[in-house]
Amino acid sequence: MAAWGERLAGVRGVLLDISGVLYDSGADGGAPIAGSVEAVARLKRSRLKVRFCTNESQKPRGKLVRALRQAGFDISEGDVTAPAPASCQILRERGLRPHLLIHDDIRSEFDQIDTSNPNCVVIGDAKEAFSYQNMNKAFQVLMELEKPVLISLGKGRYYKETSGLMLDVGPYTKALEYACGIDAEVVGKPSPEFFKSALQEMGVEAHQAIMIGDDIVGDVGGAQRCGMRGLQVRTGKFRPSDEHHPEVKADGYVDNLAEAVDLLLLHVDQ
Amino acid sequence: MAAWGERLAGVRGVLLDISGVLYDSGADGGAPIAGSVEAVARLKRSRLKVRFCTNESQKPRGKLVRALRQAGFDISEGDVTAPAPASCQILRERGLRPHLLIHDDIRSEFDQIDTSNPNCVVIGDAKEAFSYQNMNKAFQVLMELEKPVLISLGKGRYYKETSGLMLDVGPYTKALEYACGIDAEVVGKPSPEFFKSALQEMGVEAHQAIMIGDDIVGDVGGAQRCGMRGLQVRTGKFRPSDEHHPEVKADGYVDNLAEAVDLLLLHVDQ
Repeated sequence: MAAWGERLAGVRGVLLDISGVLYDSGADGGAPIAGSVEAVARLKRSRLKVRFCTNESQKPRGKLVRALRQAGFDISEGDVTAPAPASCQILRERGLRPHLLIHDDIRSEFDQIDTSNPNCVVIGDAKEAFSYQNMNKAFQVLMELEKPVLISLGKGRYYKETSGLMLDVGPYTKALEYACGIDAEVVGKPSPEFFKSALQEMGVEAHQAIMIGDDIVGDVGGAQRCGMRGLQVRTGKFRPSDEHHPEVKADGYVDNLAEAVDLLLLHVDQ
Repeated sequence: MAAWGERLAGVRGVLLDISGVLYDSGADGGAPIAGSVEAVARLKRSRLKVRFCTNESQKPRGKLVRALRQAGFDISEGDVTAPAPASCQILRERGLRPHLLIHDDIRSEFDQIDTSNPNCVVIGDAKEAFSYQNMNKAFQVLMELEKPVLISLGKGRYYKETSGLMLDVGPYTKALEYACGIDAEVVGKPSPEFFKSALQEMGVEAHQAIMIGDDIVGDVGGAQRCGMRGLQVRTGKFRPSDEHHPEVKADGYVDNLAEAVDLLLLHVDQ
């Protein structure tokens, strides 16, 4: 592999995944990953542009940011690209009225959306709300539509909580796709539109940007398909087999965000 | 399409799906489909061999048969090929100790199976037991195995209860496949091994057998891939679009089991 200086040449903006990079979520409120609070602070003091790009759909953006600020992170709501607000824009543009299969905590993000007489389903990381009854209701709504539309807030396979690996929204989206014989529209990583909106908000071109995440497919592979570079951290849901993934090869693997920031500040911010 | 006489020529054995053909299940105990009790009785009095081939994995075979007998069907336990007993044989042969993600009612089928220190997961139509917690536990068991083995009792997408369409085991199997990046082994229709064991138990060759079911893919397509013929009934989960399925064309579509038996007795049993 080329030297880091070569691999990081020309980087002007950094997209950061949140869960598994900044902190591991959990029933206990989660825990910051060692060194990440300082790493974000150092990035923010540098000349690099920074934006957070998350598939978090269990907590509303405001609540997520408050928890991260309490843990010491330098982050504000306007710094975060998240799927629920992005999906609201799509629903409005297309006149879609969703049946919501989502976590109760995030329901407030959809307060301004008409949910009467649904003509689509929006599925998020509903966690315990993924009961058989709730899944079956969403399935029945889709089966009654002439052209079923399923919008999935991300399609992650799983994430890491302090207590262990947890199923994300992706497996449940797959379940409904299979049951109804349809393909979901993904709002979130690895959808190119989602990455592009984050780049636009950051004001940086794809070839000048690097994504740092713990998901080899959703973060690294997705970013690379958009013309960005992608680093994988060995925290969060990282597994050693990711470094030999059959389809995705990261532009680099680092132990954690702190190491990624060390390298960026050494090789780019001069 | 050829005349019925031609399409049914040489049939000596009939495989019958149960749910959606004999009866629609339901919280209220379900309801027989009009004409099916008499149709089964007429088939049994004919010279045709008859066997029931079901993916039912919510009720144990004994309980299912008792309910059908109470509804008036001429059926005994030995007439039924079902996935739970078939999976027990596989578990024993391969020394597999399952973590069971199944309906409580069917747990007794696995009484003789060692479930300590699991080295595989068996998933059935668990219905309300498909809670987030139970799905996540099965996911965690699979992720801790070096070579994860997932055995799925059928892979049906949905079935029809008296109250409406209900998610079957297939979508949940897909969810775990996606979460873990693996392919499940299906015990049940449309697995060729499963159809072949039903044929063997009936003592009829594939080209002499016809499958009657309400699932265009699992029943009709699966049977055809084994060299059998397949009829679809317009009861149970049948939907008009099934008659224009992009991949599977049935050897015939009939309104219900009674019509199928009329045709068989008219053209074959002479």
